[in-house]
Amino acid sequence: MEAKLDKRAQPPEFDANFRGRLQALLVWRRDVRRFKRVALPQGTIERLIGVACMSPSVGLSEPWRFVIVEDQARRAAIRASFELCNQDALKQQELDRASLYARLKLSGLDDAPCQVAVFADRTTTRGHGLGRLTMPQTLDYSVAIAIHTLWLAARAEGIGMGWVSILDPAKVVEVLQVPQDWTFIGHLCIGYPEEEADLPALQRQGWERRHPAAGAVIYR
Amino acid sequence: MEAKLDKRAQPPEFDANFRGRLQALLVWRRDVRRFKRVALPQGTIERLIGVACMSPSVGLSEPWRFVIVEDQARRAAIRASFELCNQDALKQQELDRASLYARLKLSGLDDAPCQVAVFADRTTTRGHGLGRLTMPQTLDYSVAIAIHTLWLAARAEGIGMGWVSILDPAKVVEVLQVPQDWTFIGHLCIGYPEEEADLPALQRQGWERRHPAAGAVIYR
Repeated sequence: MEAKLDKRAQPPEFDANFRGRLQALLVWRRDVRRFKRVALPQGTIERLIGVACMSPSVGLSEPWRFVIVEDQARRAAIRASFELCNQDALKQQELDRASLYARLKLSGLDDAPCQVAVFADRTTTRGHGLGRLTMPQTLDYSVAIAIHTLWLAARAEGIGMGWVSILDPAKVVEVLQVPQDWTFIGHLCIGYPEEEADLPALQRQGWERRHPAAGAVIYR
Repeated sequence: MEAKLDKRAQPPEFDANFRGRLQALLVWRRDVRRFKRVALPQGTIERLIGVACMSPSVGLSEPWRFVIVEDQARRAAIRASFELCNQDALKQQELDRASLYARLKLSGLDDAPCQVAVFADRTTTRGHGLGRLTMPQTLDYSVAIAIHTLWLAARAEGIGMGWVSILDPAKVVEVLQVPQDWTFIGHLCIGYPEEEADLPALQRQGWERRHPAAGAVIYR
């Protein structure tokens, strides 16, 4: 509330304590598939989307489009697309993994009180094409990153998120009646998680495990 | 250092103070193009990559591949690709924006002490294909998100990053002699920034501005 003579904001200092908490946030962010059937307080998702929109975007193009899905018939149609795609995926599993695959819970579509489909508008003129001439897919990356920001901001207030990708993108566009040239990036289930964990569910259930970062680094 | 009887870690609580600092981190993260010519302490980039690898990935596939580019000839070849692509981009600008485009500084390739090219390995068997059958591009999104995590972790210790996308992906693969089937996601310039700012450089220079998040939200 102090009046400031200097209109330029001072850059914040981030200390070791903050960095430790940031790492804890990364460690305890989960792809949540089990939600309590408790609604988020009014305005929560809009506020979280507001934080997500502080994310970087190629050429400041802000290509993200957030579709808050409230209609029960549309939700059911998306759940139906998930079931269909997940059945296909199950059929394609190697024999020795199929029964484990069938036991995994891969979406929170039944319970999540808040659902948001996220798209990239590659036709946006914002940013005037800067940075994306040779790599138009950077528009999609910008949207993926905004989803990640939303994920972190949600987790920081005890709200969980799951990213559903086992869907037919064309079907989602049709169900939600969004412009045909929007690119579907992901469908988000958001709500209070049934449990917290510091290990990915897929690791706890024996599907896959994390590997040391050093194996992903090469020098040239 | 305390011995713990309970082997399960307790979930952290994140308070309003932390959330405020997290927002400050998002507000003060910049796409940095002006770096001090000061090397990062030994081991810094490997540590930051370690943090980035805590990011989510589709099916726990961890498709990220980080190529730390140290060789001066390779760096020069990447800079040459940038110059070529940037000249093309300049030619394609609308007449009234070309002179502004020409004045923008769009990469820190000349000065950044640390440079990392990042790829997605879409051929990875990790994750056993889970979650990516209908949307294989989620592998690329996972890598973009890991880059974002690296960006935030770097900024939290006063290190800046710039994401260069004005490049020919095929040329980068060739210059760095990585597998042909790796997908180039972005080339990162990393180092101590010449200045800090809470507004994007493109906004400060009048190229584009941020818009209210509400304009990116629709309800269905």
